[in-house]
Amino acid sequence: MAAELRYPLIALNFKVYLESIGENAIRLAKIAEEVSREYDVSIIVAPPLLDLRAVVEQVSIPVFAQHVDPHRPGSHTGSIIAEDVKASGAVGSIVNHSEKRLLLADIGAVLARLREVGLISLLCTDTVETTRAGAVLGPDILAIEPPELIGTGVPVSKAKPDVVTGAVEAIRRINPSVHILCGAGISAGDDVAKAIELGTEGVLLASAYVKAKDPKKLLAEMAEAAIRSWEKRG
Amino acid sequence: MAAELRYPLIALNFKVYLESIGENAIRLAKIAEEVSREYDVSIIVAPPLLDLRAVVEQVSIPVFAQHVDPHRPGSHTGSIIAEDVKASGAVGSIVNHSEKRLLLADIGAVLARLREVGLISLLCTDTVETTRAGAVLGPDILAIEPPELIGTGVPVSKAKPDVVTGAVEAIRRINPSVHILCGAGISAGDDVAKAIELGTEGVLLASAYVKAKDPKKLLAEMAEAAIRSWEKRG
Amino acid sequence: MAAELRYPLIALNFKVYLESIGENAIRLAKIAEEVSREYDVSIIVAPPLLDLRAVVEQVSIPVFAQHVDPHRPGSHTGSIIAEDVKASGAVGSIVNHSEKRLLLADIGAVLARLREVGLISLLCTDTVETTRAGAVLGPDILAIEPPELIGTGVPVSKAKPDVVTGAVEAIRRINPSVHILCGAGISAGDDVAKAIELGTEGVLLASAYVKAKDPKKLLAEMAEAAIRSWEKRG
Amino acid sequence: MAAELRYPLIALNFKVYLESIGENAIRLAKIAEEVSREYDVSIIVAPPLLDLRAVVEQVSIPVFAQHVDPHRPGSHTGSIIAEDVKASGAVGSIVNHSEKRLLLADIGAVLARLREVGLISLLCTDTVETTRAGAVLGPDILAIEPPELIGTGVPVSKAKPDVVTGAVEAIRRINPSVHILCGAGISAGDDVAKAIELGTEGVLLASAYVKAKDPKKLLAEMAEAAIRSWEKRG
Repeated sequence: MAAELRYPLIALNFKVYLESIGENAIRLAKIAEEVSREYDVSIIVAPPLLDLRAVVEQVSIPVFAQHVDPHRPGSHTGSIIAEDVKASGAVGSIVNHSEKRLLLADIGAVLARLREVGLISLLCTDTVETTRAGAVLGPDILAIEPPELIGTGVPVSKAKPDVVTGAVEAIRRINPSVHILCGAGISAGDDVAKAIELGTEGVLLASAYVKAKDPKKLLAEMAEAAIRSWEKRG
Repeated sequence: MAAELRYPLIALNFKVYLESIGENAIRLAKIAEEVSREYDVSIIVAPPLLDLRAVVEQVSIPVFAQHVDPHRPGSHTGSIIAEDVKASGAVGSIVNHSEKRLLLADIGAVLARLREVGLISLLCTDTVETTRAGAVLGPDILAIEPPELIGTGVPVSKAKPDVVTGAVEAIRRINPSVHILCGAGISAGDDVAKAIELGTEGVLLASAYVKAKDPKKLLAEMAEAAIRSWEKRG
Repeated sequence: MAAELRYPLIALNFKVYLESIGENAIRLAKIAEEVSREYDVSIIVAPPLLDLRAVVEQVSIPVFAQHVDPHRPGSHTGSIIAEDVKASGAVGSIVNHSEKRLLLADIGAVLARLREVGLISLLCTDTVETTRAGAVLGPDILAIEPPELIGTGVPVSKAKPDVVTGAVEAIRRINPSVHILCGAGISAGDDVAKAIELGTEGVLLASAYVKAKDPKKLLAEMAEAAIRSWEKRG
Repeated sequence: MAAELRYPLIALNFKVYLESIGENAIRLAKIAEEVSREYDVSIIVAPPLLDLRAVVEQVSIPVFAQHVDPHRPGSHTGSIIAEDVKASGAVGSIVNHSEKRLLLADIGAVLARLREVGLISLLCTDTVETTRAGAVLGPDILAIEPPELIGTGVPVSKAKPDVVTGAVEAIRRINPSVHILCGAGISAGDDVAKAIELGTEGVLLASAYVKAKDPKKLLAEMAEAAIRSWEKRG
């Protein structure tokens, strides 16, 4: 059985910046842990794969892998297998991130592997069509990242609110048990609030946190915004 | 607008055998045309990409590409673009064959490109989950090829009839307008009959036809079986 | 045995532009044939894969595939096999174009397959290191395309003449039997002349020809320049 | 500057077996460390990527990554970057293992990245042609793994001694500074001795060690054989 996460959720993808590898991965994870505790809000971190295990040992918030391969244990030099993610103490994995796209057949296989070893899946998709297909595949969490907004600094929740509400409705219709996050362009508390108002259960962000001058301040602002708009939604 | 196909449908994937390239592609396509006319049954052929245009020029039955890339026209040396499939006179393309798997994001893009230029899409999927995801993506035709049966010579319709009926039901629920073919292990008239009895609208086969000692006899047997079981189904 | 080409050589990669697919492939190939005959200079064309066979039927100059897969004939839906390139009447293939990069292991396999069926290989490489590695692999022709110049419109022969002379020397030392072409940024007769002066045996170009307002005029200019600088070199 | 290794060298690739992930990675690395110390022979370990950092912290022998991506630090979710391998305390990386093949262009880029951050490169190649191309690319170490012997349990040094001596000579001629290991089928002390007799400087092995009933005994036997045949060679 996979662990349970609480919502609203702020998911932090550290990617592999100089600011997020090695000891920086631990530093950024500890800041996230502090904010999570101080604001009693659910925050997960996805550090670089090489730092996954060390981060798990240093913080008590849930830790995710950035990627996992579909292979079973065996002769797969250089691959990341679900059993080792589990052994590392991580509780889940990002799947099919826009920077690590998978074959449709492999997404099915990875989701099955994560289920098998008891890990939470966070599937990334882009267009409305692939998001709906993603919902059918039954991940635990689905992060919507419209391709036209990735890396623009413009949050999808502001630029195209009806893309978000449309996707939320479509996912709910197909698979009401999937948790929905809003990705792409989230860089301030306001973006988090807006994302939750539009019906999602949180956000997935990366560079805005990793590259922030004051990551703690930014994350605290996002945590407050998340709580406020979550309570408003009731 | 893409052309309309009639059902039941027998789809012949020539792959790239010595028996199916060059002049053999034309020979096998002409046999298919003869059987299609003599039995008044709908047959499509997917010859090797290099022989696509020559086959189109030689037969009047519908011709499909075996694969198309997601790219728009441009600097993509060695790629197959939808516009050139259309210019070749083909009417559609196989997408995501088990021997040419695509990223989920690219399947979405390829289906959009085929729609844009007016070509029919024949999407291949394997497990129940990816088949359901495939149905959501809205291809014109969906060919179910359970991975445990590919290349076994055992038709899915016989080995696992409930896999087929289950998939047919699931697809109908998600997207009633998708045409459904049964792939994997089809090698005789009986297999075709069984596939149609189980609710599909035809079959997708490859080596059984290409490698047949008497391809015409085999295809005629399949055409008869298709018509018979289609009429029985009413 | 593969066919023999004459040098200097102008190799035209049509890529898959709207201006180069379908009937346009034949039109552009016929212009190349005219210039080749009028100026008695060696020109080869690499049309889109779907148009390869039709182009071969329409012109008498050597035709190349833009890409070929390492597979032997068999169950490889959507792949391009060497045997079918040969059956199409083409005499060679581009290998590892920057838009269709191959695994090192597959480059080895593709070159072996081309040799086996009697086709000429035109291998593309980028940096000095991979160019030297490419020379070791023993292709018939090696086209140098420094990554910093691709698509810039600045010919490598002008921007970095010592990159070209350095690469030519390195290749000659490793494998004196490899023919060397200069790619990247070739767009005028001058560029061709310069490339030959620097020790190469011709050029590989794409968009400059395909997108030219008057392709015949441009190619004639290049043919003249090629002959002139070839004779000067003696 | 990359660290210096001593030769003869026994390189242990742990792959991602259940027997080699998590705590097992540390257990197997500690056994290697014991044998290295007791026999004063150079042994390196390449644990699963997720366990790399923990293994470095637990043993004092050199540790290698099983794979590294060509990317620079940045937006590359799920990738392994050279800077993080370095930050983990590892001293090198396997490159282009037969289970993780790379594009030729990416091999060039990865070797440059490893050099840039001061890590040792251990490049795997298969055929004589790609091995010679690999030598040109200038890795620190080259492991020859003839494809016809991988996973057969038959050591290349016994089955095809002249493949090994031929490869050694070819590499020496191209690049005398490259260290050469013999991979594929190494499973006993004898295989190690034979590999060194044939002119290599050690071996690369995986399952024989990971799956051994008594890994320490096997590795001790290999260490003894390595020293013995190294001294004999003088």
